[in-house]
Amino acid sequence: MVHGKMSASGHEQVTHFVDDETGLEAIVAIHDTTLGPSLGGTRLLPYESHDAALRDVMRLSRAMTYKAAAADLDLGGGKAVIRADPTEKTEDLMAAYGRMIDRLGGYYITSVDVNTGVADMDVIAGETDHVVGTSAGLGDPSPITSRGVFEGLRACVEATYGTPDVDGLSVVVQGVGKVGSGLAELLDEHGAEVAVSDIDEEATAALAREYGFETVAPSAVYEQPCDVFAPCAIGGVVNDETVPQLECDIVAGGANNILDERAHAQALRDRDILYAPDYVLNAGGLITVAAEHTGDTREQALADAMAIGDRTRTLIERADAEDVTILEAADRYALERIEAARAEATSPSSR
Amino acid sequence: MVHGKMSASGHEQVTHFVDDETGLEAIVAIHDTTLGPSLGGTRLLPYESHDAALRDVMRLSRAMTYKAAAADLDLGGGKAVIRADPTEKTEDLMAAYGRMIDRLGGYYITSVDVNTGVADMDVIAGETDHVVGTSAGLGDPSPITSRGVFEGLRACVEATYGTPDVDGLSVVVQGVGKVGSGLAELLDEHGAEVAVSDIDEEATAALAREYGFETVAPSAVYEQPCDVFAPCAIGGVVNDETVPQLECDIVAGGANNILDERAHAQALRDRDILYAPDYVLNAGGLITVAAEHTGDTREQALADAMAIGDRTRTLIERADAEDVTILEAADRYALERIEAARAEATSPSSR
Repeated sequence: MVHGKMSASGHEQVTHFVDDETGLEAIVAIHDTTLGPSLGGTRLLPYESHDAALRDVMRLSRAMTYKAAAADLDLGGGKAVIRADPTEKTEDLMAAYGRMIDRLGGYYITSVDVNTGVADMDVIAGETDHVVGTSAGLGDPSPITSRGVFEGLRACVEATYGTPDVDGLSVVVQGVGKVGSGLAELLDEHGAEVAVSDIDEEATAALAREYGFETVAPSAVYEQPCDVFAPCAIGGVVNDETVPQLECDIVAGGANNILDERAHAQALRDRDILYAPDYVLNAGGLITVAAEHTGDTREQALADAMAIGDRTRTLIERADAEDVTILEAADRYALERIEAARAEATSPSSR
Repeated sequence: MVHGKMSASGHEQVTHFVDDETGLEAIVAIHDTTLGPSLGGTRLLPYESHDAALRDVMRLSRAMTYKAAAADLDLGGGKAVIRADPTEKTEDLMAAYGRMIDRLGGYYITSVDVNTGVADMDVIAGETDHVVGTSAGLGDPSPITSRGVFEGLRACVEATYGTPDVDGLSVVVQGVGKVGSGLAELLDEHGAEVAVSDIDEEATAALAREYGFETVAPSAVYEQPCDVFAPCAIGGVVNDETVPQLECDIVAGGANNILDERAHAQALRDRDILYAPDYVLNAGGLITVAAEHTGDTREQALADAMAIGDRTRTLIERADAEDVTILEAADRYALERIEAARAEATSPSSR
């Protein structure tokens, strides 16, 4: 029942590919191309069913539309999934996948995601121009993502405490992967009291030693009193169980899908906790690959990611003015950009 | 469960399109492009479910691969369905559909089918180059289709009676639409005793009067003694009920899907009735739109359609030699062409 799902979710195009020779099974979902070609990564997972893969790619591609639109990019939203075991990933498989991407004529541009990396993008680039995140690109986007999250976090701090200065604020960073550790370093540089928490206790301890950070046990992270809680690991950490536990003024991080459900944005608001939408704050990665696509420099990508601060400020003001969550304000802003472009495209003068 | 179906049936690509503005819901199935871009018509029907539409387009696109391959065309098989009520067909809908076809980058070329005509192809041509059967094309392919069926029928006659001459043979033509009436006229010109049958009694009577044909009541057509039964109307007319009724030596016609099931080819063979595969005999329409695509003339298309006679002869000989039905021989021939091209494409020297 793809069409039923598509109509409800506004998807333009969902393409299923099979390559018998390599065993490739892939789905590319193009949610919206009003603002430009759709861009989003390719996730490779051993989905237990075709329907599970389809549900994932439909959901993820839709989120990319909002992310690109809210980041003021001239890009639409798309995403792809390859149904395979990561251990079975071969160069032939990725080359076959690249040929399939080429068939989409540039309406979808792919990049890295779960279980696909720069080396895979290089293989894909041998078959199509519609790929970013290659080794010839702008390099690891993580530092730029961290910087964007940091600027967004400062906007939240300003709205809450009257100044964007993080000096002396206590911040708990959940997850010390590339984005989380980068954020922790930036916060440290700017005088914040940083505590880090990760299920990888060794990595946590090493980072804490290097910078003199506190550490928080993963089981205690939600109840840890702090000014800012910065989730930079897994999704769904703000949920029915954790919302009452949180002892912070701000939730602002780089993880995808921080909220278990959309309603948790309102639940945080009800507790007077300021929540900045994850997709606004973590857009630096998308901004970097978008810059690769348009031929911009890494410096330009960094500057664009730093604008996430001002964007967050504007969205917080709009949320106040319209008496809604910042998530709702961000969604409205994204939709308005798309609707304005659509109206422009269908106006008699542009025909 | 599209992939499950796709793997079993060898489909390369199935794309679902939705356009919210016009309400377009379309599926394009590309079965195989080994021999060239896939070509097949767009069928517009109010399918009762998305799954019903999907099943239809999967089945039809696969058949186009065999049809093109067996006709020695450098084309693959594809087909499209639009889920809509024919009364709701608008120019905007077809234009939106044309833009979607354009996105497929030429891997699929569309044309007319049930509830889509030359005017629709003209609208589509305003949006994409990947369309044939337009008013700028080679015109109505029906006379060429009739000629191809006639030549194939003569090959069957030669295999049965030792000479391709139809003079004096009794032929029952079921269906007096464009292809059936064209076949009846050719048979008449060549001295056959033609009887026509159609549920449209007025059209049947008019044609019979003009050419002095006999008429056969639709309910009596299967039991009518004759040398050749030529189904040129609906599909599924050779079925469990009609196989024992047939009083002919040859079944050779222009209808699509003459056999209710594949097993009926063997059932006819068991009764010593020669059955020439419909998709071999009625390829003239496809040959004509293929010629439009490659820029060939109508004369060239007619010449290519007349080669259906020699092709049918070859397939009858192969079926005899391999002790299989002619349908099986045709399928084998089609598959061999595809496999040879695939081997060529993946051989080290061509890489």
